[in-house]
Amino acid sequence: MDPLASLDFTKGNGLVAAIAQDHETGEILMLAHMNEESLRETLRRGQVVYWSRSRGLWHKGEQSGNVQILKSLSIDCDGACHTGKRHCFFRRWDGSSWVDEGEQVFDPKEVYGG
Amino acid sequence: MDPLASLDFTKGNGLVAAIAQDHETGEILMLAHMNEESLRETLRRGQVVYWSRSRGLWHKGEQSGNVQILKSLSIDCDGACHTGKRHCFFRRWDGSSWVDEGEQVFDPKEVYGG
Repeated sequence: MDPLASLDFTKGNGLVAAIAQDHETGEILMLAHMNEESLRETLRRGQVVYWSRSRGLWHKGEQSGNVQILKSLSIDCDGACHTGKRHCFFRRWDGSSWVDEGEQVFDPKEVYGG
Repeated sequence: MDPLASLDFTKGNGLVAAIAQDHETGEILMLAHMNEESLRETLRRGQVVYWSRSRGLWHKGEQSGNVQILKSLSIDCDGACHTGKRHCFFRRWDGSSWVDEGEQVFDPKEVYGG
């Protein structure tokens, strides 16, 4: 399975927003963007590569040495929420497919109607 | 001090990206957008109000009851990073001003040049 097949890059003119969160503390480190190439590079390298209007393909930390080591990658529901999950980013890439790890907190049919 | 004075809404055509993170677990709940009005409403109500292209002003949870209670609000450096902080979102609104709570991890002059 191609991990990128589950992502829609067309809405954002080829870009998606990418949130970097510290693996241990949960701290949000930064918000940036990725295009298809940067996401493929991220998965290939195991280090985070963004895409920026000014820099183009941007391997974070290539200048400072403060690279971001990829520990885990999850995607959100892209606006098609209302699944009754606790949070939007419930699909995690396990190396071969997107795994649903979301905690179900309510039944969407009961709350939003069937 | 007007909290909105420190935010640049012009780059995103009146919108900024807003990340909701669980106050206790650090889990990222969702990524959505705010305009000026939604951010003012968020601060006024103490519950998170987004802006969405389809819904307009969107008081999260008004239908499901699962509102997001505002515990803390921080803003990032808006691309003007390279401050040597551990993360971008180091300014927290304390009710009257933006407080710098960032941990300094390196000297930007040494790493990026003066």
